[in-house]
Parts: sequence; C-alpha cells; structure tokens
Amino acid sequence: MRYVLLVSHGEFAPGLHKAIEMLAGSDREDILSTSLKNGMGADEFAENVRELIKGIGKEDEIAMFADIVGGSPLTTAANVLAEAGLIGKTVMVGGMNLPLVLNTVLSKDFAEDFGEFVRTSAVSEAREMIQEFTIAAEEDSEDFI
Amino acid sequence: MRYVLLVSHGEFAPGLHKAIEMLAGSDREDILSTSLKNGMGADEFAENVRELIKGIGKEDEIAMFADIVGGSPLTTAANVLAEAGLIGKTVMVGGMNLPLVLNTVLSKDFAEDFGEFVRTSAVSEAREMIQEFTIAAEEDSEDFI
Repeated sequence: MRYVLLVSHGEFAPGLHKAIEMLAGSDREDILSTSLKNGMGADEFAENVRELIKGIGKEDEIAMFADIVGGSPLTTAANVLAEAGLIGKTVMVGGMNLPLVLNTVLSKDFAEDFGEFVRTSAVSEAREMIQEFTIAAEEDSEDFI
Repeated sequence: MRYVLLVSHGEFAPGLHKAIEMLAGSDREDILSTSLKNGMGADEFAENVRELIKGIGKEDEIAMFADIVGGSPLTTAANVLAEAGLIGKTVMVGGMNLPLVLNTVLSKDFAEDFGEFVRTSAVSEAREMIQEFTIAAEEDSEDFI
C-alpha cells in the first residue's frame, strides 16, 4: 500500500489530517498523522511514530510530509523510518500544505513511480497553489458599507 | 495592529496555530484562527469569523491565510471581512503552510508595506520551503539493518 504520513509541531498534522478527511473521505488506513505537542519530548514523539507505522511493511511505500524541513518532527520521524528499514521506500517533503497532501492522496494509486510523482508533480503543484486570493474591494464597499 | 488570521477545513487552522505558538510564542492576540469543522454549516462558520474579528478596527491590517483558494472557508471569511469593511486592509493567500505563516508572524512588524511583503516575499519563500528532505538511505541501512 502507498501510505501518506503527516508529522509536525503542535497539532498541525492531525488538524490537516481532519481537513483531508473532509475532502477525501474518512476512516482511511492509508493516511496517518502524529505531532510533537508542546512539552512533549523527542523520545515520546519517536515512540508515537513507531506505533503509528507498525502496520507498514517492506512492500509498502510512504510519502512523509512535514511542517518544515529542519524541524525536529521530520528529523525524528525520518530516523524512526530508517530504524525500521523503511527509509528506502519513503519520499519526504517539508513545508506541507493542503494541496500537496490532497493531491497526493487523490493521485497516489495512479502514479507509476510514487516517489517521483510526489517529488516533482505534487511538489510543483503545491507551490503554485500558494497564491493570492482577491475580490474587488470597491465592489464590496458598495455592497456592504 | 497587524493581524494574522488562519482559516481552513477540519482543524487545520487551529492545529497550525498551535504549531506557530510553539515556535513564535503563545498568547499572542495578533494571531487568530478558526475552522469549518465536519458537519458545520457555512452560517455557523461565518458567525465564528465575525466573533473572531470583532476586535479588529479600520486602522488595523490583516493577512488572512487559508488552506486552499476556492474553498468555502476562505470565500466565506472573505465575505465576512468585506461585510465588516475590512477587506481593503486585508491580503489573502490560499495554500498556507508553516513557513508562510511563521515568516509572516516573525517579520510583519518590520515590513514597510504589509500587504506587499506577504504577497511577494512571504509567498515566494513559502513556495521554496516546500522541498524534499533526504537522508542517505545506504548509510542508514548500514547503521540500522
């Protein structure tokens, strides 16, 4: 199976997970998330990641998305995946946003090369989707004020 | 004051808010968040946005970040801001990620033109920060397997 694993500080990863469930369906066993909460040590976080990935086998593939490259959640989770012998089947991307995760979740089973799809097409679209949204201020002023 | 307002589906916005508090300090009145939870109607969400922004005045500025352009949370919140006469002082960006919000929170009071800073520098950096993270798989295999 192709898994999407979300990790972060705070409650960003489980919060984004809930948003994805609203848009792509809930109770999916292929989307997993955990986060380094305020006051939690790296050891406890690592143990939570170990628990979360214990159903993933060597025949599976993983896209791991994190809040930021260089942060402790991504680094710690990467070490746990390496420890479990799964890092060779994992593509990791920091700076996750909803379009990155949603696009990966919706397209992953159609991609020939999962890692390549994530690191090129999904990343590129996610970057483009960080965009300004505008509505005509003047028009609104007439409507509402 | 310059406000950073986060809106989303699920619990993405409050979850990201918690991550930002871990990295930039908590109990800040200049960061606000609310989300359209599963089963919640647009009217209830709009009312929550109205409540959230009631301390914001015409002399203030707002950067509103949302999970995705085109989604109901961003569109509804934009309408509420317009209704309150605040849309002219607001810059809105969809596809938010942690680097976008963190950078804006940390830099906002140093920017000469807040809107211009967000729509150019912050968006551009946030895009770049969606990046692959790699660790040497072979090395890890030797270490761990």
